[in-house]
Amino acid sequence: MISPRIRGFLAERKPDEPCLVIDLEKVRGNYDAFRKSMPESAIYYAVKANPHPEVLRVLAAAGSNFDCASVAEIKMGLEAGATADRISFGNTIKKERDIAAAFALGVRLYAVDCREEVEKISRAAPGSKVFCRILTNGEGAEWPLSRKFGCDAEMAPDVLDHAYRLGLVPVGVSFHVGSQQTNADAWGEALSSAASIFREMETRGIRLTLVNLGGGFPTRYLKDVPALKQYGMSIYDAVRRFFGNRIPDTIIEPGRGMVGDAGVIRSEVVLVSKKSQNDKLRWVYLDIGKFGGLAETMDEAIRYSIVTDRDGDEKSPCVIAGPTCDSADVLYEKNPYALPNTLRPGDEVFIEGTGAYTSTYSSVAFNGFEPLRTYVI
Amino acid sequence: MISPRIRGFLAERKPDEPCLVIDLEKVRGNYDAFRKSMPESAIYYAVKANPHPEVLRVLAAAGSNFDCASVAEIKMGLEAGATADRISFGNTIKKERDIAAAFALGVRLYAVDCREEVEKISRAAPGSKVFCRILTNGEGAEWPLSRKFGCDAEMAPDVLDHAYRLGLVPVGVSFHVGSQQTNADAWGEALSSAASIFREMETRGIRLTLVNLGGGFPTRYLKDVPALKQYGMSIYDAVRRFFGNRIPDTIIEPGRGMVGDAGVIRSEVVLVSKKSQNDKLRWVYLDIGKFGGLAETMDEAIRYSIVTDRDGDEKSPCVIAGPTCDSADVLYEKNPYALPNTLRPGDEVFIEGTGAYTSTYSSVAFNGFEPLRTYVI
Repeated sequence: MISPRIRGFLAERKPDEPCLVIDLEKVRGNYDAFRKSMPESAIYYAVKANPHPEVLRVLAAAGSNFDCASVAEIKMGLEAGATADRISFGNTIKKERDIAAAFALGVRLYAVDCREEVEKISRAAPGSKVFCRILTNGEGAEWPLSRKFGCDAEMAPDVLDHAYRLGLVPVGVSFHVGSQQTNADAWGEALSSAASIFREMETRGIRLTLVNLGGGFPTRYLKDVPALKQYGMSIYDAVRRFFGNRIPDTIIEPGRGMVGDAGVIRSEVVLVSKKSQNDKLRWVYLDIGKFGGLAETMDEAIRYSIVTDRDGDEKSPCVIAGPTCDSADVLYEKNPYALPNTLRPGDEVFIEGTGAYTSTYSSVAFNGFEPLRTYVI
Repeated sequence: MISPRIRGFLAERKPDEPCLVIDLEKVRGNYDAFRKSMPESAIYYAVKANPHPEVLRVLAAAGSNFDCASVAEIKMGLEAGATADRISFGNTIKKERDIAAAFALGVRLYAVDCREEVEKISRAAPGSKVFCRILTNGEGAEWPLSRKFGCDAEMAPDVLDHAYRLGLVPVGVSFHVGSQQTNADAWGEALSSAASIFREMETRGIRLTLVNLGGGFPTRYLKDVPALKQYGMSIYDAVRRFFGNRIPDTIIEPGRGMVGDAGVIRSEVVLVSKKSQNDKLRWVYLDIGKFGGLAETMDEAIRYSIVTDRDGDEKSPCVIAGPTCDSADVLYEKNPYALPNTLRPGDEVFIEGTGAYTSTYSSVAFNGFEPLRTYVI
């Protein structure tokens, strides 16, 4: 659903190039929904999802903390009004000089997933709190995670132990169940592992207090997703099941769930054609593609809702592609997309649910095309 | 092979962030090699491969024409010193207002692959020359092309005919055998189709004169590729075989082959770790990844040569990943990459053959990381 505010803005502005419009009221509403559905958890917005200064300002004012992937994101969080104690350096892969820069900015909470990273933090951010990220299987996620982040749960106690010995404060465990996680019960298994690590550390005389539940909260694309409330109930149920009466502090890191449905990309049809006289499929070329902000169509992972002003007309399946001279710049081909038969060059196309993981993925200037512009309203 | 000039520059400059260094002498040398190996063809450098102003200036001065994907690229070509008659608007997907802008800038040569695009050009660039792109199968290419560009050869005569009827000048046919094409004989089949189209048009009373042979000329990554001379011989052989004594004018559009081996990316190891105590693979994290310029590692398509100062030490297979919090930001995993066992955070890493299709693919600010910086020397 494109909000009337966004509709109105676009009708008035009539942009010439593709753009993303973010409705800040919707962002604010999403924040409140997270607060209400998971009242016992601290919210650390995943800045990487959309670091627009206005988005950060609205969230900082509402009380959000920030999960940051780099020193630049930490600075953005601070500029938006969050104090350093509301910032987590959540990337497990950090240059030692970046850790030092974060420490100098006042950040005292860091993610780790191996002894090597612990050692860097002990040198560059002495005395800081660290949580150890563990691997999960990511089942049920539409943008599933590789093994890139986290260590096997069995290794986590040694990593946390190592932190303790080097003068850091091991506070707990984090994990991520996969982005756009449509199974509200997906947190259970990882919470069970986390509880085991808590028990193991207890036997070593170290009391952990924090479980970082990560992100994964979905936004609605074409299919309905479970309500946030269901996620809250399922997660808190599992926490109680595995931690009994020693309930840990919890953190959530929503990114897509916070801003995804607050954004709409306005694009334009550039060409509609066929490859041969008898081609059953039309090719619809838009002025935005994989390199202009729709990187999450990689392997057709995220299937956006595409709205046109001709949606009342009869539809037939199309291949949808971007405007660059790169043949990989095809959005949907294996699984063609039904668009109106009357669609023609110059028609506006609205791509919904594009508030997260779009504008910053955009390439600097591939094929000479400008990066995706963002308007916040 | 990293040129001594690039080595020297990096040793002196000691950049703090990942960067691409382009050796202009090498670009110039590559241009001369194309001239020498394919003396009968006009060279249209594919600007999208690397549009750095200095690269374009060197090529314009050497006599190169430019194959442009957008109005922005056309302007860059003009600014570099090429006149409009040396520019081809080679993207088959163009907004009508962009065609008009190109026409106003003096461009008179356009790619098409369907009747719809012909109609746009007839309105926005009346009287211009057009060539019709046809589909090829792309076998033997490491970055093979989808069906995104071009129409089936059977449809081309109608497209060209349509252009003629609308007052345009149908000049010929273009195709692309796939990027990083390591089979020097790959042009034969498409040339045979092109010759059929020439004959068919002749029967319709239209004499075509131009075959645009596209790009595809490889650069050396890890494996040796055939010498440019072999491509020239094989292509001209096929032209003579299929066109007999009516040899058409030909165009080549090298991009990767022109600048690929002129560039080296300097990166840094951020972390080396294992996921469990018994992990057989190390994970090596660099400060550049898929979203910082190495987009062509998508599906591990392009396998770069990675050089370190510890290459004399024993090596073992690693997963190589980028610095962002995106789990898709993994360069080589299915096919691990052997790196020195002694490699550690802070070590420099040189990624060779990165002059093409890197800097402009770089994302604007994903995870807060700056886009890849380019230095030309």
